[in-house]
Amino acid sequence: MRELQQKIDFLREVDKLKQVYRRSFLMDGTRNENDAEHTWHISLMAVILIEYAEENIDLLKVIQMLLIHDIVEIDAGDTFAYDEIGYLDKEEREQEAADRIFGLLPESQKDRMIELWSEFEEQESNEAKYASALDRMQPLLQNFYSKGSSWRPHGITKDQVLKRNACIKEASEELWEYVCKLVDESVELGYLGI
Amino acid sequence: MRELQQKIDFLREVDKLKQVYRRSFLMDGTRNENDAEHTWHISLMAVILIEYAEENIDLLKVIQMLLIHDIVEIDAGDTFAYDEIGYLDKEEREQEAADRIFGLLPESQKDRMIELWSEFEEQESNEAKYASALDRMQPLLQNFYSKGSSWRPHGITKDQVLKRNACIKEASEELWEYVCKLVDESVELGYLGI
Repeated sequence: MRELQQKIDFLREVDKLKQVYRRSFLMDGTRNENDAEHTWHISLMAVILIEYAEENIDLLKVIQMLLIHDIVEIDAGDTFAYDEIGYLDKEEREQEAADRIFGLLPESQKDRMIELWSEFEEQESNEAKYASALDRMQPLLQNFYSKGSSWRPHGITKDQVLKRNACIKEASEELWEYVCKLVDESVELGYLGI
Repeated sequence: MRELQQKIDFLREVDKLKQVYRRSFLMDGTRNENDAEHTWHISLMAVILIEYAEENIDLLKVIQMLLIHDIVEIDAGDTFAYDEIGYLDKEEREQEAADRIFGLLPESQKDRMIELWSEFEEQESNEAKYASALDRMQPLLQNFYSKGSSWRPHGITKDQVLKRNACIKEASEELWEYVCKLVDESVELGYLGI
């Protein structure tokens, strides 16, 4: 029963992800979304868009990575995609958070979760690249459908968005092509600066 | 590009799940949680608690089921677990919702998603039983840690909770044992009626 209680303690702790709010807005622009909602959305995207990923990708691994990828933000907070100063100590803050939060789990499961989280962060495997592409693409869709709600107030430009999201190209040519079209349309509609 | 746009239209539509609020509260009792948050939480539970499920269970299938199991509530609304009248036409309302929402997807993916959703609803496969056990167990944990926040105002009793959650026993003896302990403790602490 002790191991089960450790797992439950972890599952209780991560409930806090529902209160980590992001800069991006819901599709209808009514409010910011939180990390738990975002994570559900991209996990479902992983299933729905799998045909655009590399062949022989391990979808279960992708989803497991996604389900835990933002948990460190419970301690480390959400760093805005275009906040260059916040990015300076992001890695250190997130490593400490991973040690504390995954440390609630029984040893072997803790190791497995930290391994998955590190694989996502390192961006080398095909699974990590596809997972990361979805993590970038979703706020882009949120921004497009909510008329640039988290781009406009910060004066974000087309170049910044293309640079930030270039990793999508590595995961999928088709998704990248779609994203480029959306970015061009966003400039035309005034959601995004030139 | 047409099929990709259909998938994106579906992914845009399901964003509304983030605005379907449930009776259950966050672990800290500060507010009700929504279906998207709940779904993320139980999908992660599926990963963390897998050792308590039947052997040879297909975890990817379980998670895929969970990721979509509440989508019908975008149209049909959340039916409170102890609302007997609401349950009378629940099935019909949810089938219509499934046809409309999954109908946004390309034909073959639509069929696959409706098949997964139906498998979950029918509660026959080991995957559906484990998925459902988690779907029941999570609000129970929320209730326990938030001191009966959605039990007390409705005068819910121990017998109602045990009857409602009996399906957990079919998926896992260990989880059921844990749940029974939690229910007894909830009665002792006054979170739940006798």
